[in-house]
Amino acid sequence: MVRASFLRISCILFTLFFLFAISLYPLKRPKFQDPSGCAPWCSSKNRISSKLGSILETKTSAPQHPLDPLTIQEINQVRAILSYYEPFASSFPAIYSLSLDEPDKDQVLSWRKGDPLPPRKALVIALLNARTHILTVDLELGRVISDIVNSGSGYPTLSIQDDISTAVQVALANAEFNKSLIQRGISTSDLVCITPSAGWFGPDEENRRVIKVQCCVSEGTPNFYMRPIEGLTATVDIDNKEVVKISNTGRDIPIPKGTNTDYRFTAQNRPPEMEPINPISIEQPKGPSFRVEDGHIVKWANWEFHLKADQRAGLVISRAMVRDSESGELRSVMYKGFASELYVPYMDPDENWYFKTYMDAGEFGLGATAMALVPLNDCPRYSYYMDGIFVASDGQPFVQPSIICLFERYAGDISWRHSEGPIFGFEIREARPKVTLVARMAASVGNYDYIFDWEFQTDGLIRIKVGLSGMLMVKGSPYYNIYKVPNPEEMSGPMVSENVIGVVHDHFVTFHLDMDIDGANNSFVEVNLVKKQTSKGESPRKSYLKAKRKVAKTEKDAQIKLKLYDPSEFHVINPSRRSRLGNPAGYKVVPGGNAASLLDHDDPPQLRSAFTNNQIWVTAYDRSEQWAGGLLVYQSRGDDTLAVWSERDRPIDNKDIVLWYTVGFHHIPCQEDFPVMPTVTSSFDLKPVNFFESNPILRAPPTFQKDLPFCQSIPS
Amino acid sequence: MVRASFLRISCILFTLFFLFAISLYPLKRPKFQDPSGCAPWCSSKNRISSKLGSILETKTSAPQHPLDPLTIQEINQVRAILSYYEPFASSFPAIYSLSLDEPDKDQVLSWRKGDPLPPRKALVIALLNARTHILTVDLELGRVISDIVNSGSGYPTLSIQDDISTAVQVALANAEFNKSLIQRGISTSDLVCITPSAGWFGPDEENRRVIKVQCCVSEGTPNFYMRPIEGLTATVDIDNKEVVKISNTGRDIPIPKGTNTDYRFTAQNRPPEMEPINPISIEQPKGPSFRVEDGHIVKWANWEFHLKADQRAGLVISRAMVRDSESGELRSVMYKGFASELYVPYMDPDENWYFKTYMDAGEFGLGATAMALVPLNDCPRYSYYMDGIFVASDGQPFVQPSIICLFERYAGDISWRHSEGPIFGFEIREARPKVTLVARMAASVGNYDYIFDWEFQTDGLIRIKVGLSGMLMVKGSPYYNIYKVPNPEEMSGPMVSENVIGVVHDHFVTFHLDMDIDGANNSFVEVNLVKKQTSKGESPRKSYLKAKRKVAKTEKDAQIKLKLYDPSEFHVINPSRRSRLGNPAGYKVVPGGNAASLLDHDDPPQLRSAFTNNQIWVTAYDRSEQWAGGLLVYQSRGDDTLAVWSERDRPIDNKDIVLWYTVGFHHIPCQEDFPVMPTVTSSFDLKPVNFFESNPILRAPPTFQKDLPFCQSIPS
Repeated sequence: MVRASFLRISCILFTLFFLFAISLYPLKRPKFQDPSGCAPWCSSKNRISSKLGSILETKTSAPQHPLDPLTIQEINQVRAILSYYEPFASSFPAIYSLSLDEPDKDQVLSWRKGDPLPPRKALVIALLNARTHILTVDLELGRVISDIVNSGSGYPTLSIQDDISTAVQVALANAEFNKSLIQRGISTSDLVCITPSAGWFGPDEENRRVIKVQCCVSEGTPNFYMRPIEGLTATVDIDNKEVVKISNTGRDIPIPKGTNTDYRFTAQNRPPEMEPINPISIEQPKGPSFRVEDGHIVKWANWEFHLKADQRAGLVISRAMVRDSESGELRSVMYKGFASELYVPYMDPDENWYFKTYMDAGEFGLGATAMALVPLNDCPRYSYYMDGIFVASDGQPFVQPSIICLFERYAGDISWRHSEGPIFGFEIREARPKVTLVARMAASVGNYDYIFDWEFQTDGLIRIKVGLSGMLMVKGSPYYNIYKVPNPEEMSGPMVSENVIGVVHDHFVTFHLDMDIDGANNSFVEVNLVKKQTSKGESPRKSYLKAKRKVAKTEKDAQIKLKLYDPSEFHVINPSRRSRLGNPAGYKVVPGGNAASLLDHDDPPQLRSAFTNNQIWVTAYDRSEQWAGGLLVYQSRGDDTLAVWSERDRPIDNKDIVLWYTVGFHHIPCQEDFPVMPTVTSSFDLKPVNFFESNPILRAPPTFQKDLPFCQSIPS
Repeated sequence: MVRASFLRISCILFTLFFLFAISLYPLKRPKFQDPSGCAPWCSSKNRISSKLGSILETKTSAPQHPLDPLTIQEINQVRAILSYYEPFASSFPAIYSLSLDEPDKDQVLSWRKGDPLPPRKALVIALLNARTHILTVDLELGRVISDIVNSGSGYPTLSIQDDISTAVQVALANAEFNKSLIQRGISTSDLVCITPSAGWFGPDEENRRVIKVQCCVSEGTPNFYMRPIEGLTATVDIDNKEVVKISNTGRDIPIPKGTNTDYRFTAQNRPPEMEPINPISIEQPKGPSFRVEDGHIVKWANWEFHLKADQRAGLVISRAMVRDSESGELRSVMYKGFASELYVPYMDPDENWYFKTYMDAGEFGLGATAMALVPLNDCPRYSYYMDGIFVASDGQPFVQPSIICLFERYAGDISWRHSEGPIFGFEIREARPKVTLVARMAASVGNYDYIFDWEFQTDGLIRIKVGLSGMLMVKGSPYYNIYKVPNPEEMSGPMVSENVIGVVHDHFVTFHLDMDIDGANNSFVEVNLVKKQTSKGESPRKSYLKAKRKVAKTEKDAQIKLKLYDPSEFHVINPSRRSRLGNPAGYKVVPGGNAASLLDHDDPPQLRSAFTNNQIWVTAYDRSEQWAGGLLVYQSRGDDTLAVWSERDRPIDNKDIVLWYTVGFHHIPCQEDFPVMPTVTSSFDLKPVNFFESNPILRAPPTFQKDLPFCQSIPS
């Protein structure tokens, strides 16, 4: 459809296009790594080889848990209900989202295995005649029970069938756009067009759905991202199927060469300049210790949680519970955690760049852009893979296979240790290896790859890690190297290859963390370290720090900017649950390396992404407030963001509250990022603080020699 | 000697005491993990089983490299030279340090394997008649070539034979101190005395070497740290062997019970409340890929460096070089890197606590307090272990076995990845597993354990990680739980067990990073991200960021406090070495989570630890400036710190420069830290930036199924 025959143009559509192809795939057997031979764990319940069975079960059987995603059958049922829905009788709308409308929290919390599920409902976002419908479909009643037409700003997540292909077709059908391509002497056989989102920048492009179209050249390389046709952008009105504007400022900028940009292993013609690394593997002679029950319930060591893939959020953890180290009680830690939005502003005011201020979750979808993980390379051996069941814009379900992996990690790290000298009978060498459980997804949002890890530790800590890899978004430059650039300071980023600028940009990933520490009603406590001066004669010391606890009463009390020189710990506690000593049970959010958005608060992209104006927020729980940039993000004007909700200043003390944390990165590219970037990571932790009565892994056993596997190279 | 018979008192001396016992150990075979059977790599050069040979070689043979530590023979030779040295003829001094006086940099840099070594010299710190001698001994000339008596402040690192045992003996021989113990009804058979350093707090304890003595009870537990005898401190003049002062304010504070404080595996009487974790191991069917040549030269993948243990600094990395990904040239990255000082101020102005402001490297020694790592638990299988050869206070050498381990890590992480959609012939799933090399040491400085990891990545990145585990330093409280505390806000930390307060404290680890990017002459560049406003009509965007490079001309330009809202990258570059595009070759320091010291700059402990007043400093290279708190730290007054050197404001542009980075932690304890703390880590990275022409691991191969080992549980 996009391969317009008159031009033989191939167009890849920024991040969503492949969905179409995937949606055509049959429900095929996923690739599955089985070590040769059958170790004892092959026959255990959590064996890797059970995967195929469980996936087919997921695809075909009924949901097992109130939070299970809609099944293929349920999606088909919703589509059928919509097709009979009166307002859509004459014309079926384009479906932009169709997913489980999760039951109310109390229904989920009171549900026990064996109980009938709460009524299954779907939340549908559909577009018909340029109107966005937000519908609730009750599958039991078999009808639409709510239909709200959006009256605010913003449009649904872009879709390939109805939006992106249209945009590219419209641009390529435009004579001026074509002429510009021809004038550049571009061989159209290798043209690849991408579709950056348009953002929102005031009246000019308001009240109509517009998108940008830019093209690259894939001649000689699959890494077309490194061969931009700089300074040529079509702005397309998707609904009216017309080119609104063409910007053509880059006529004098050559298309960078494709030399050395192909990153595929099969394209490498010599080994790297290093001694080879011998094979290395995480081995588990008795198999992994986790199991996945009913398709989504993960049980491992002292943890239990619900794991699923979501088309927009990507990887979703729900009902995370950890076992009390004294009583064995399974205690609630987090009701739901996921990446709510991902904001990526590029730092170039140029006509062809200013709008590159992506909101990848709401504009493209983190699950939608996640592709099958590569066994042994994206995830270690013994990983368990989980599929996503998503919905195309015609309402048809499709399977995105193996987009989540789950594995046990041993990295040679130490859980705790202490050595004591040999005198006095205390010659002690105690150490415990750290083994963790990781749930991973990698979203390839066009050029960039985002790796999301949720790592669970037996000491109760959850580490949430974001890794960035993939390709830079680069800018063509008329200059071959920096010696030729008249004023290098004026470039919007460093040169990373000949005629290629790596434009400076930021990444912000905002996590929705609905903490429920031992129940829904929690409080947010800022434990501020304050410098105190000693009074004269009090002490030889002049100063010391004191921890001052401040309970946040309302949302505005919990708008937090991290400060190195005014530090705090940030606790979510249950004021009703006290340890035997009287300390409230809690978890703290522990920031790692971070970066803040520095853009003007009234700059349009920052208005829309105002959720990055603080690193931490706490809001009163409202089931509709899931998406930090709003439900309808595309071209939104910032009227439905976390920042807006927080300004309502609702009470949050001893209430059901949601913690929001943003991980940020400033990225000044360098040559090492070309043609594909070594992974950069940052993380933060959710760490128990007086949640347990004492170190919960005190009694964990060490590793003994007898437990280790006996390994050989496979005979050749 | 300390086991005073009249009291049957066992005294463990804070962190150094065990040295004595270790020093009595014969040069015994280190424990060595060999998997049953002999895999093919057994016969390869870097096989683990070669370890014993290499260690004995280190102990007995001549040094192989200019930076190799002094051998046992050389130490014996130095001792002999000192014994004939005229000023020591009548009385041999106490030896507080005896280690290699490293040759000048140019001698090391011009040395090639096969060349004769530059003259071997020793740096000796000795104390005689309360005077500190700093001596240089030339082993070739066979004489002392320099002898400087310290005229500034500060004393050498504490030593067990001459200082700490004296202090405990003096305290225990004191009638008032004894009476205080008896009044508390303490059974003396289980008394353990520790010796916190005295710090420096002005004239009262000036110009004499004093130390504090406090005791704990080990009845029923080896974890005597959790059973402090609160509020009883003897201040002892070590040289005059007299008690200067006794503080006895804690008569009403009970000694906390020992229940549930024993952390030894053998003491646990029930399993943890979790499902067992199956055995898991990093396996390498063909053995590890690194090798250690000549006892200290580590070669792995594209890295080569010199690794050794130092009694004060712990783990030292020298001459770190990485292979150029284009030319294969071995290029210099760092001349020397190590933990220069470790500052731990506790936040309690109480008479028995104010002085707890440790400087662990200079006061106790990070190598001196490192004990043998526990195979399979501190370090994974296939680790290579390295010993330290240290010197006791009588000048005798001794071996601290297996205090460094070196291993290859595969943690299931991704080096780089990209997925591309299936349309247009670009169905791409490329991912590369991340395999790294880790050098590790764990110092048990009394209660606390510090795990130091230097992790080398094939993409050129070095991650330096500090992990904290071991025991809290706790304070006895009259109160059983917080309900009984009249004013909980007044406590100096949270209650972590009955009658036990975990006192709030900080940790700061300052690293000396002598970066030599492609040679000694480097510059420090702050790449500041500055917000720019667009002018009217320039762009629909109002703001964007611009990277502004500023080369530091002098040391004061490079006194850096990290700022979230005024962010920079921090590059060490070689201005003479440019990439093909013209970018200078460099490495940047990338902070992770961090904390700053907030104490008054004129507070005595902060004066001494003024090196923590900034997170980053850059100084002109001076071979004498190795120790951030000064060469003689004990009771120093801050006259020889990094802060003092930096104030000289020497030129640093295109000079031989040293980068200093401080990793900080604020620690507000919690119940989970009792009775032993789950490891908390923080790290920072040294990351190539335009050092390579492009991604140096582009051509790295993926892992294939055929490379994986075939593993089984060992037949029972």
